[in-house]
Amino acid sequence: MRVKCVVSYDGSRFHGFQVQDKERTVQGEIQKALKKINEEEVIIHASGRTDAKVHAVHQVFHFDTKKDLPPQQWKRAINHFMPNDIYILDASYTDDEFHSRYSAIKKEYRYLLSTKEYNPFDTNYVFQYGRQLDIELMREASQIFIGEHNFASFCSYDQYGNTIRTLYTFDIVEEDGIITFRLIGNGFRRYMVRHLVGGIIQVGAKRISKEILSEMLESCGTKKCLFKAKPQGLYLQEVYYEED
Amino acid sequence: MRVKCVVSYDGSRFHGFQVQDKERTVQGEIQKALKKINEEEVIIHASGRTDAKVHAVHQVFHFDTKKDLPPQQWKRAINHFMPNDIYILDASYTDDEFHSRYSAIKKEYRYLLSTKEYNPFDTNYVFQYGRQLDIELMREASQIFIGEHNFASFCSYDQYGNTIRTLYTFDIVEEDGIITFRLIGNGFRRYMVRHLVGGIIQVGAKRISKEILSEMLESCGTKKCLFKAKPQGLYLQEVYYEED
Repeated sequence: MRVKCVVSYDGSRFHGFQVQDKERTVQGEIQKALKKINEEEVIIHASGRTDAKVHAVHQVFHFDTKKDLPPQQWKRAINHFMPNDIYILDASYTDDEFHSRYSAIKKEYRYLLSTKEYNPFDTNYVFQYGRQLDIELMREASQIFIGEHNFASFCSYDQYGNTIRTLYTFDIVEEDGIITFRLIGNGFRRYMVRHLVGGIIQVGAKRISKEILSEMLESCGTKKCLFKAKPQGLYLQEVYYEED
Repeated sequence: MRVKCVVSYDGSRFHGFQVQDKERTVQGEIQKALKKINEEEVIIHASGRTDAKVHAVHQVFHFDTKKDLPPQQWKRAINHFMPNDIYILDASYTDDEFHSRYSAIKKEYRYLLSTKEYNPFDTNYVFQYGRQLDIELMREASQIFIGEHNFASFCSYDQYGNTIRTLYTFDIVEEDGIITFRLIGNGFRRYMVRHLVGGIIQVGAKRISKEILSEMLESCGTKKCLFKAKPQGLYLQEVYYEED
């Protein structure tokens, strides 16, 4: 049977999502718990990886199991073995057609940035930029990314695969000195959100123009965006499926 | 010359405020920075200690120095050497009569508690109680502590000194499932806030009555309060001085 889980985690103390031999990872912690419950190794499949220090409000993963627990017991059972920085919000049986990664149709990321004075409580949760940014300039520039584009200039250097993605939403909202960047797309390659936000911040700081950003996008990887926002402010907010 | 500083710190990764030989402490980190700036050992004096994992929004300390920095440079100089979980909000020269501890006339603490489902992002910042509490019962009970009392039953076992203190305010506010307890008094002994809040939570959970809490207070240490709220939700919010 296949179980679908929605999980929230504070990425501060993890070396990312994907399991690694010697480092503490989200997948590693969850698989350790599932091994105890299932009494055998269980591999989980997430909607995608998140990098070191990146958070998730609603990440989705699934796994297959022979353990026949009553549906409402999975959530409690897994949370029983979770460290305090991971929490399973929901767990339910799903059909075998469902795949956390391949069934996902949209993903939403949020990025938080502070224009205020440094706040030691937010150091792992909000990028402490500490200076003003021109919101209107950023809003204008963000719209060049909407639609289907080859985002090669905004992806990691080591990704030579398909870098064509569709971005549906790129909102920028400011409240009490905290700027929230909200991106919804059909998928995001590694470092793509951080490069998009990084480029937009450079426009908001008047270091580059919207036109330069546009040239980077159109160059399809020839003119790379060299500005990558820090991981600490990044949240995987939501993964959307047909059924939702 | 005497310098007065206002400092904010995330207590999560500290073994409390007071300097210790082998553990990471707030005082230890600040004194290391001041030694670099002053080129000699400097001892700081705070308004009071905070325990391991307890936070400070506005803690106050002072120190004496022979280093003749322009007033506006102290803040930047100290912050230059601070780790990311401590931040100096203000630093200014003050007269030699001023003492962070002895000149303080009032202190304000806040305690945050969540009645909502567990949130992995708040584990170090809000006590994850996860059940409902009767706010009206707690408000009523909190008022028995207002005024001058011998708080011996709500202090640490190892404190035999003067346990008489005056509590001016004990507010309880709920917003979106987060309850904020706000206490203002002329001083608080070790663990006193956590015992007062712990006792009140027991009343809100209907495990003890207001009368039992009252008996504890009147017993002056014979009937100890055994409920001590976790350190993670506690914040030293403000230290008040005559001059303010």
